Amino acid sequence: MKKISTLILFVLMGLGAFAQFPQLPHGQVSIDSLKSEVLGVNRQYSVYLPKSYETSPNRKYPILYLLHGVFDNNNGWVMRGHLQDVSNKLIDAGEAHEMIIIVPDAGRDWNGYFDMDGWSYETFFFTEFMPYIENKYRVIGDKKNRAIAGLSMGGGGTTVYAQKHPDLFSSAYAMSALMGLPEGGGIPAQDKKMAELNRTVIENHCVKFVENADEATKETLRAVRWFVDCGDDDFLFDVNTDFYKAMRNAHIPCQLRVRDGGHDWEYWHSALYKALAFVSDGFDN
Amino acid sequence: MKKISTLILFVLMGLGAFAQFPQLPHGQVSIDSLKSEVLGVNRQYSVYLPKSYETSPNRKYPILYLLHGVFDNNNGWVMRGHLQDVSNKLIDAGEAHEMIIIVPDAGRDWNGYFDMDGWSYETFFFTEFMPYIENKYRVIGDKKNRAIAGLSMGGGGTTVYAQKHPDLFSSAYAMSALMGLPEGGGIPAQDKKMAELNRTVIENHCVKFVENADEATKETLRAVRWFVDCGDDDFLFDVNTDFYKAMRNAHIPCQLRVRDGGHDWEYWHSALYKALAFVSDGFDN
Amino acid sequence: MKKISTLILFVLMGLGAFAQFPQLPHGQVSIDSLKSEVLGVNRQYSVYLPKSYETSPNRKYPILYLLHGVFDNNNGWVMRGHLQDVSNKLIDAGEAHEMIIIVPDAGRDWNGYFDMDGWSYETFFFTEFMPYIENKYRVIGDKKNRAIAGLSMGGGGTTVYAQKHPDLFSSAYAMSALMGLPEGGGIPAQDKKMAELNRTVIENHCVKFVENADEATKETLRAVRWFVDCGDDDFLFDVNTDFYKAMRNAHIPCQLRVRDGGHDWEYWHSALYKALAFVSDGFDN
Amino acid sequence: MKKISTLILFVLMGLGAFAQFPQLPHGQVSIDSLKSEVLGVNRQYSVYLPKSYETSPNRKYPILYLLHGVFDNNNGWVMRGHLQDVSNKLIDAGEAHEMIIIVPDAGRDWNGYFDMDGWSYETFFFTEFMPYIENKYRVIGDKKNRAIAGLSMGGGGTTVYAQKHPDLFSSAYAMSALMGLPEGGGIPAQDKKMAELNRTVIENHCVKFVENADEATKETLRAVRWFVDCGDDDFLFDVNTDFYKAMRNAHIPCQLRVRDGGHDWEYWHSALYKALAFVSDGFDN
Repeated sequence: MKKISTLILFVLMGLGAFAQFPQLPHGQVSIDSLKSEVLGVNRQYSVYLPKSYETSPNRKYPILYLLHGVFDNNNGWVMRGHLQDVSNKLIDAGEAHEMIIIVPDAGRDWNGYFDMDGWSYETFFFTEFMPYIENKYRVIGDKKNRAIAGLSMGGGGTTVYAQKHPDLFSSAYAMSALMGLPEGGGIPAQDKKMAELNRTVIENHCVKFVENADEATKETLRAVRWFVDCGDDDFLFDVNTDFYKAMRNAHIPCQLRVRDGGHDWEYWHSALYKALAFVSDGFDN
Repeated sequence: MKKISTLILFVLMGLGAFAQFPQLPHGQVSIDSLKSEVLGVNRQYSVYLPKSYETSPNRKYPILYLLHGVFDNNNGWVMRGHLQDVSNKLIDAGEAHEMIIIVPDAGRDWNGYFDMDGWSYETFFFTEFMPYIENKYRVIGDKKNRAIAGLSMGGGGTTVYAQKHPDLFSSAYAMSALMGLPEGGGIPAQDKKMAELNRTVIENHCVKFVENADEATKETLRAVRWFVDCGDDDFLFDVNTDFYKAMRNAHIPCQLRVRDGGHDWEYWHSALYKALAFVSDGFDN
Repeated sequence: MKKISTLILFVLMGLGAFAQFPQLPHGQVSIDSLKSEVLGVNRQYSVYLPKSYETSPNRKYPILYLLHGVFDNNNGWVMRGHLQDVSNKLIDAGEAHEMIIIVPDAGRDWNGYFDMDGWSYETFFFTEFMPYIENKYRVIGDKKNRAIAGLSMGGGGTTVYAQKHPDLFSSAYAMSALMGLPEGGGIPAQDKKMAELNRTVIENHCVKFVENADEATKETLRAVRWFVDCGDDDFLFDVNTDFYKAMRNAHIPCQLRVRDGGHDWEYWHSALYKALAFVSDGFDN
Repeated sequence: MKKISTLILFVLMGLGAFAQFPQLPHGQVSIDSLKSEVLGVNRQYSVYLPKSYETSPNRKYPILYLLHGVFDNNNGWVMRGHLQDVSNKLIDAGEAHEMIIIVPDAGRDWNGYFDMDGWSYETFFFTEFMPYIENKYRVIGDKKNRAIAGLSMGGGGTTVYAQKHPDLFSSAYAMSALMGLPEGGGIPAQDKKMAELNRTVIENHCVKFVENADEATKETLRAVRWFVDCGDDDFLFDVNTDFYKAMRNAHIPCQLRVRDGGHDWEYWHSALYKALAFVSDGFDN
């Protein structure tokens, strides 16, 4: 049912309850872009601003970076993940805090969250994108009020970013995460760009990172709230449980859930509910 | 992530688990239509056929009629309700039986599930559409293996159809249901068609039907498994709880759930999971 | 399996994972009592102290008052509600904050949370019990970090206490709540004590309180986070939905859930999970 | 609140709804015993008979064998698993079928579900206990309407019994299952009885059974509906995921869920809800 229809129903149906439900203000998703010097192109991003953003012009908010998967872009979480509807619903119910949610674009021409030969996405993200976003929008801007989450290739990006920058994120929620690739594995590399994606995923192996971490590194990882969420039918199941076991063996607290499902949007849409609640539990209240 | 991408990943990623997950056959949604003599037009419908339908050419299946809301048509459950993904997931998990799911079209030009002046939809449904469907597809065809569910205007249709034909349906699952309208109420009637919708919803008031039922009618209603599912923020909350109380007072078993949410697709999408499981519990196994 | 057995298994089973799971410190429930001048007797209470309470001697905590039902006492939530296990589990998962939970005793000889002729329980609670508790234990002590919840008669107590003292509680979670009694209704009064219970529940009718509230009172009620949780088979269903509708009509935000079940401990045990998460979302983080 | 209190409330409270909720008949748990020739002793068991058992003297029912853990006996599922309350609730909601549930006693003096030197429990179970039970109670008695479930040591028993007798059980639901022990591992053997338990658990290793199965055996295993449910904090996590991976690699359909929690009754109590629904989905309707 279209929004306009709902409004009409609200206003005119004459039911006893109708007058009691004024249409509430809600958070909105929009699309914007920035010019990247590092990448040499314009990059889009999707942004969710919560309901009070316009009406409370001095208020600052926690922020969540929400990463998409391979062959996708910043539209996926919006169009199929129903980001706006899910966020509004959880915030209205008090299960998630009002927050700013940013979906960067790590797809289209190139795919990947790491520095590749000819495409320094990771450098872009930390030196250009994050500063731009956190200057443009009213974010609180400390570790406690910043979180990261993502699916598949973006779940790998989530984990690696939080492993390398545990001082930046209070929570990391990895869904169906591409936690690494075996040597020589990967998506068939028809071209250099895909070959570079494979190479960098192999290099940034999340399980090996934990297994090789010294005690000082492990201690910094304990300052992040970790959550791994992977379906029992997911082809990435093994590497996700391997990661969980490495974390447990390193005495780094980490939640694991294996729910019903595979590597698909029904899984990620339901995971978004859990992710927003989980990162909210780590934000200031 | 597009389907083709998932396939590529499955086939070529070189992960340990990949070879273990051959792409399973899955149920498919398609669109078809029939020529209606009653309505004098062609009418579309969407149809979900479960995974074994093609490979088991002699097998017969239970059937669910799944009704859409006002200003919508047979596409809504497919495009925003993600009917195919939800059905496949629940059937794979063993929580729903393989079944045929039909979404009729009660929208577009006219809206409504009842007989209106100039548009005899209810007559069409029972005398033309159901026989056509149950002749064309391999359905078991008895009451036990036939169920009905729907949202909003289609939740009202669900309830009224099962009230008038308790011999036809084993289960009725009403979501955010338009269980009736007060005298003089309704969607603002810009034209005769909408006025007819209002009039027929007022006439087919689900609560009054129960309150006015004699004991013999109540006894027939007890042969249907009833489920009412309505959000706490739904503007139809009152009429849904009134219906539940009328059923309870008439000693007709009926489940009620009030979950978080309003009159929107996040609610109905999650309700579809519950509906498929509920109607399956009533089908033969 | 007894605790000792689990420990033995942990220590000696020789499984790969065992060394990774040192037995964590956990919160504990104990029973204590105070001498009440108001009531003229000693009163027990049960108290849950979270895992860090002993090891962090300067840390202060949020507090939840958790009320029991009629013919029960401070043992019910401990023995059948499994308070310690549920609290430890949710806190370990990060879904609830570490908090102090107090179950007062409003049963045994007399039953009820209000001031009765000869038994001024409400006066005792606010002038004697709360000050005693919040002096004895390390509580933060402000409204934001204080919540109240309860079942049945204690759900009524929860609602009334928060209605009269919205400045004291950030959240109120009412389970299967005795929100009021009709004139002349109530538990059969074999004696004066039960007659007094009936009289005070009739007097403290939660629905009437909302319906009769002036705008200033309504505004104070909007500063509390309200949650009503009642089973579809509960004999108190009607008065709970009446309360919800009164709140909605008064534009006081209030969550409602109707889950499967009746007036029993399976319902309340599962409600405790939801209550601890809900009140935590209102506490400082 | 005691049952009698609820009844009083129902009968006398004078609330609008009260007369609508006559106390429904419910299933009951009782304890009985049989004389075992194989074991040479009397053995207790707990039995749940569903609500219609007494009033429908010719009706036959599906049966579930529900196994307990080490150092426990047939009382655990009743006292801490709240077997009667959970079963009644799910059956009333239509989420589980009416079924007979039997909790055998594999504890007290000896512990274990397998044939040990001096205590042939497995022989007892299949040649004496099952025939006795299925003769005494009105069970349907075919594979489709017989299921098995259990926790910890009883989850291992569940899996092994279904592996050896896939012709007897339609579903096997293993909770926190002791799927095996490494060579030389086990509970510290203070005596021969415990040493025998360790030896037989090592011998009956569920993962090795799958890995060593020939194709014909695998095919028989595909005729059982398998469900593995294990908490992320369980010290048996690794062997449970190993079992799942062995099943997947052998192309034997198997559900896996990793929910929040450890090796404790909060986990098993919530697992019982899922187990009763899962086995019901495999029974005739």
